[in-house]
Amino acid sequence: MDISQFVAQSIGHWRSQRSAHHLAFSHFEAVLSEIEIVALPLDHPEVLQLCKAYQVDPTMAVSPFHMSWEGESDWDENAAPIKGSTVLVPVPDPQVPNQGKLLRDQGYAETVAAAGDYVIQPDGTFVLTTSYDRAAAEERIWFANPKLRFRVSLIKTSAGSGVVTASFASEIKTR
Amino acid sequence: MDISQFVAQSIGHWRSQRSAHHLAFSHFEAVLSEIEIVALPLDHPEVLQLCKAYQVDPTMAVSPFHMSWEGESDWDENAAPIKGSTVLVPVPDPQVPNQGKLLRDQGYAETVAAAGDYVIQPDGTFVLTTSYDRAAAEERIWFANPKLRFRVSLIKTSAGSGVVTASFASEIKTR
Repeated sequence: MDISQFVAQSIGHWRSQRSAHHLAFSHFEAVLSEIEIVALPLDHPEVLQLCKAYQVDPTMAVSPFHMSWEGESDWDENAAPIKGSTVLVPVPDPQVPNQGKLLRDQGYAETVAAAGDYVIQPDGTFVLTTSYDRAAAEERIWFANPKLRFRVSLIKTSAGSGVVTASFASEIKTR
Repeated sequence: MDISQFVAQSIGHWRSQRSAHHLAFSHFEAVLSEIEIVALPLDHPEVLQLCKAYQVDPTMAVSPFHMSWEGESDWDENAAPIKGSTVLVPVPDPQVPNQGKLLRDQGYAETVAAAGDYVIQPDGTFVLTTSYDRAAAEERIWFANPKLRFRVSLIKTSAGSGVVTASFASEIKTR
């Protein structure tokens, strides 16, 4: 599995069932959401803009995509729905197979632009690590079959050793 | 990481926070439990008995252990606590590094004896697959640090393609 195949399998509409474990106080959070992943052309203005922002040659980019999500958490019944979207641009390392940078215009743990480092493991698991000012995130995504994928996300302290939140999503492709 | 190191890291008392996703109807189940993992000597009667039951030469076994758990689920408030214990005996494949059989006297998905096949991946993730009469189980366990491990378990139909339940446990070593 290379990054193009991984992105190609991810394109579509997903129904996501996510559990977050807030480890310090053994709290469970349940989130149901809908995720839409759409391929973007390499010359899409937002792709070119993101490459420019990170000073990356756009001809190095591969399989850019747009991701949007909308969901509800049982954490706070009165909260507004969780909603957002981001553009993501994989930039493979020309020297090392199956690893590279993932540019995006908005990160998970902070609301600023962030580039992560990805590696696709021999078993096809996509592992993304992203460092922020005050936190670090690790995400693992793998397919059980073409219509079912799993995602484990860890939010760590910036030092990297302490995991604050661990979450697990089961995602079923609905179209 | 080899099987001896993996078992050695697992020995101790763990506080487990587990979420199960029942995929067909997007149901969330939350389970809090305590897990105790204790090393057993290679000549422990239960280890020898298990080797005999599976017709395995006991000198092939490595790092056997006893695991017990006790917990509570929010699935059925009136249910008795989830409680159990099992003896597990890794038997490395002499031909292939970092893979082998895991014998146990009781499986997860059924209450009969079951042997699984394990592989330790290059990143240290332990992956166990077990086939039962009417189901198959896949379990992935990895350490974020020596005192924090994660466990993803899938229960599949016996054909192996359909995942019925996916669960995720965050486990913190408390002693």
